[in-house]
Amino acid sequence: MYFFGLFLPDESEAYFGNDMQKITNEELGRPTPEEFAMQRKLPLTVVLDNVRSANNVGAFFRTGDAFGIERIVLCGISAVPPSREIHKSALGAEFTVAWEYASSTVEAVSRLRAEGYCVLAVEQVRGAVSLDELEAAAFGGLGKFALVFGNEVDGVRQEVVDLCHGAVEIPQVGTKHSLNVAVSGGVVLWEFFRQLR
Amino acid sequence: MYFFGLFLPDESEAYFGNDMQKITNEELGRPTPEEFAMQRKLPLTVVLDNVRSANNVGAFFRTGDAFGIERIVLCGISAVPPSREIHKSALGAEFTVAWEYASSTVEAVSRLRAEGYCVLAVEQVRGAVSLDELEAAAFGGLGKFALVFGNEVDGVRQEVVDLCHGAVEIPQVGTKHSLNVAVSGGVVLWEFFRQLR
Repeated sequence: MYFFGLFLPDESEAYFGNDMQKITNEELGRPTPEEFAMQRKLPLTVVLDNVRSANNVGAFFRTGDAFGIERIVLCGISAVPPSREIHKSALGAEFTVAWEYASSTVEAVSRLRAEGYCVLAVEQVRGAVSLDELEAAAFGGLGKFALVFGNEVDGVRQEVVDLCHGAVEIPQVGTKHSLNVAVSGGVVLWEFFRQLR
Repeated sequence: MYFFGLFLPDESEAYFGNDMQKITNEELGRPTPEEFAMQRKLPLTVVLDNVRSANNVGAFFRTGDAFGIERIVLCGISAVPPSREIHKSALGAEFTVAWEYASSTVEAVSRLRAEGYCVLAVEQVRGAVSLDELEAAAFGGLGKFALVFGNEVDGVRQEVVDLCHGAVEIPQVGTKHSLNVAVSGGVVLWEFFRQLR
């Protein structure tokens, strides 16, 4: 498999196994919605600050289901269920991931702070911690997180950022220097899931 | 900041800094398309096996730009530029990330193998390596990767999986046990970027 430290792709079976049959839905052993409701959740709440696209909101539900987050707080103009568009991209995960609506993101973040959450904006701001340097465990075993994702065009608004304990940014090297908000959600939720589960 | 190992959110300034002004587009210091073209790329090619949605294809371009990947190979029925839908979700990244079209994913994967790429399907198959256990560095310093992502409904087809050196899966705990393909792209490309850049 290795030759002077070099991986030889054609001898990869030892690393990957050589029976790569696709796993059927039944074999995946997914929890039922009832079992999912009883599972211990990742101590993580997602806050959407005026995410306009129902597709993006639906993708957050699907990602939140996959990584077993606590809940989603939909704020301001964010689309809310029931919505055919959300259903189409969430594939029904809007029924398994807890959610609530708050007209004001500022009030939602203030409440989360009062409830003991460490609230972090996912945004490119001064003083933001780069996602590859974030150590969620440094926040202590009892850490509960709320991650705020912003509008497709405007991001997380400054007045909301100002209420957060800190900010996290995804390091990037591209010409756009931004990701689709649902893709950002996948990246950041994965990183917390990887570190905390 | 810590109290018996417990993070005190209200004293978070030391960790995060307390001036969290949003960074303007100018301050981000993004490379121009010309500078981007000259940058060293992540040794990673994305292969899309019949990804139907132009929105998803566009998101791959935007993510590929952010993480500086080598190129995207669009296969089969995958939408290709020029496309208004791709442009809308790629925000122009279809002009900065190199791409090519291949009618047959099987032929594209065979060619990448012949060119020395380690080709991995992102799919739930027997013998797949869990993304949180994947060590890209184990493939040697000269490792070049091609990651194959599949159709929104059918995933990566078995005949394509069979041609790959291995498979990677994103561990999940939800009822759906799958992610939107563009979100999966963000998660897996982030993990390779984090490990290899």
